[in-house]
Amino acid sequence: MGRIAVTDGMAPEAVAKLVESGHQVVEQHYSPLELIDGALSEFDAVVVRSATKITSDVIDASCAQSGNLSFIGRAGVGIDNIDMAAASSNGVIVCNTPGASTRSVVELTMGHLLACARFIPKADRTLRRSEWAKKSLKGSELGGKRLGLVGFGRIAQGVGSMAQSFGMEIHAFDPYISKEIAADLDCILHDNVDGLFKKCTHISIHCNLSEETKHLVNISRISMMPGIGADGIPCGNHIVNCARGGIVHEESVLEALESGILTSAALDVFEVEPAIGNPLLEHEGFHGSPHIGAATLEAQSRVGLEMVNNLLMHFEGDKPASALN
Amino acid sequence: MGRIAVTDGMAPEAVAKLVESGHQVVEQHYSPLELIDGALSEFDAVVVRSATKITSDVIDASCAQSGNLSFIGRAGVGIDNIDMAAASSNGVIVCNTPGASTRSVVELTMGHLLACARFIPKADRTLRRSEWAKKSLKGSELGGKRLGLVGFGRIAQGVGSMAQSFGMEIHAFDPYISKEIAADLDCILHDNVDGLFKKCTHISIHCNLSEETKHLVNISRISMMPGIGADGIPCGNHIVNCARGGIVHEESVLEALESGILTSAALDVFEVEPAIGNPLLEHEGFHGSPHIGAATLEAQSRVGLEMVNNLLMHFEGDKPASALN
Repeated sequence: MGRIAVTDGMAPEAVAKLVESGHQVVEQHYSPLELIDGALSEFDAVVVRSATKITSDVIDASCAQSGNLSFIGRAGVGIDNIDMAAASSNGVIVCNTPGASTRSVVELTMGHLLACARFIPKADRTLRRSEWAKKSLKGSELGGKRLGLVGFGRIAQGVGSMAQSFGMEIHAFDPYISKEIAADLDCILHDNVDGLFKKCTHISIHCNLSEETKHLVNISRISMMPGIGADGIPCGNHIVNCARGGIVHEESVLEALESGILTSAALDVFEVEPAIGNPLLEHEGFHGSPHIGAATLEAQSRVGLEMVNNLLMHFEGDKPASALN
Repeated sequence: MGRIAVTDGMAPEAVAKLVESGHQVVEQHYSPLELIDGALSEFDAVVVRSATKITSDVIDASCAQSGNLSFIGRAGVGIDNIDMAAASSNGVIVCNTPGASTRSVVELTMGHLLACARFIPKADRTLRRSEWAKKSLKGSELGGKRLGLVGFGRIAQGVGSMAQSFGMEIHAFDPYISKEIAADLDCILHDNVDGLFKKCTHISIHCNLSEETKHLVNISRISMMPGIGADGIPCGNHIVNCARGGIVHEESVLEALESGILTSAALDVFEVEPAIGNPLLEHEGFHGSPHIGAATLEAQSRVGLEMVNNLLMHFEGDKPASALN
């Protein structure tokens, strides 16, 4: 039976399931200093979200001497906060829960797309300050427009399918997806990012942050967007990012909002989080949320149960299905 | 050829089409006094939205003496601002454009449903005042929940179909719709309103305002809502109204938000509009928009073209398809 540290919280039903299976669970947050001092060395496994940073120093400290750490679980998707090379070289398995938050991110993306098209936050904001801004809130429909998806993995495919039910035409750029898979899902796959931006009035980001994707959305590409929908309606240009901060170059977005090239930009993720003091927050065309793509009761419950399955397999000596190394 | 007054605006392409067909179009707003003084008596037709009130006095004045008024067009759906009895007794045809704004209202409803489930306006509002409220913004998914539609006409059916693509189970109350039509659309039809509220965590209003529907959403019915989704998730209760003010009893909504029975209420329409000074506007769980259901470029263009068709048929001596008397 294993000793498991849970440093950033976990759904109660998941913790209960681990305890029922005979494991010991310690729910406690550790400071970076405590981690480097080897706080995890007395555990067999650690489960983190994004708040705990598992650097190579932390891994070395957790495995040195009598350190038993053999499993790092990331309750969520992105593993930017875990040094994979150090984990692998110390023989530590890293797992995430890739499917658990898909539906929540898809729904938030659709919510932001609709909120952008109809200025929902601005509608609420103006009303709260006693303005009846009906005349200045003439929006547009999603139906009849082209949605460009940057990345066409699990989440983007979910967004594409829902957007199709709204009557949108789906385009994507993803060098790792075959034309056949895209065609099966009625999605037009582009050979390059520029082509996607030239075609689509609505762009939504669904890729990882990497050297390849950093600042992929910049002023030059935003300037290529057509502003006029496939149906001839001058709906303006709209960008949504519920993936990772840094893929969208925020200064470009602000410049494009100010010049009117962009009608709206909805960001759930930012280059620096918490995004307090970000100059974007003051623009009327900006729509923000504080990284809540996976912040639903459903996603957190599924994340927990998916992580329990990973842990149980690991302690039984099997390789978990979502092992990343 | 006819002389047509357009008192509350019309899409330019629609005006152009009337002029091309040889009609004379005067775009001008008239005060209530001018209308009662017979300002419309020199016209064959008048096209209004909701701002111009066509009372029986206005109709009498427009038809008296040499008055030629024979057609009142309502560019939109609701005809609360037109005295139908007076129109009929003066032999004046009244037409609206029932289908033109359907898709826009459907999309706004879906936008509000998603915004409620994920607190999108609050997310934006807190960020703008420098709060990173991620922890207090744990939402829920629409997928796996029951959506109750009050009224199951054109708009509700559109909402139902999109909500189904999100994985919602669709329920409705509508005494004028057959069980067969509902069953064909995979919608569970209820015999009474109470049954709908007892079953559904999400309610959306899609009926007309009438004696029958006035204050249909009251504290007693809101208190029947289950708060726990069909999937067992405690998602709370959510109400959206993009139909007409007055169907929802606003004091009940405020009471239910304050007591926590309701998690959110999104209102696009109000008992008194403009809804300035409404105490609901100050509640965190309230989501508002200033009657923008049909406020899209697409809807206004379709409204205009649908009205042109009505007018052209009328002037050719045919009864327009959407004549209401």
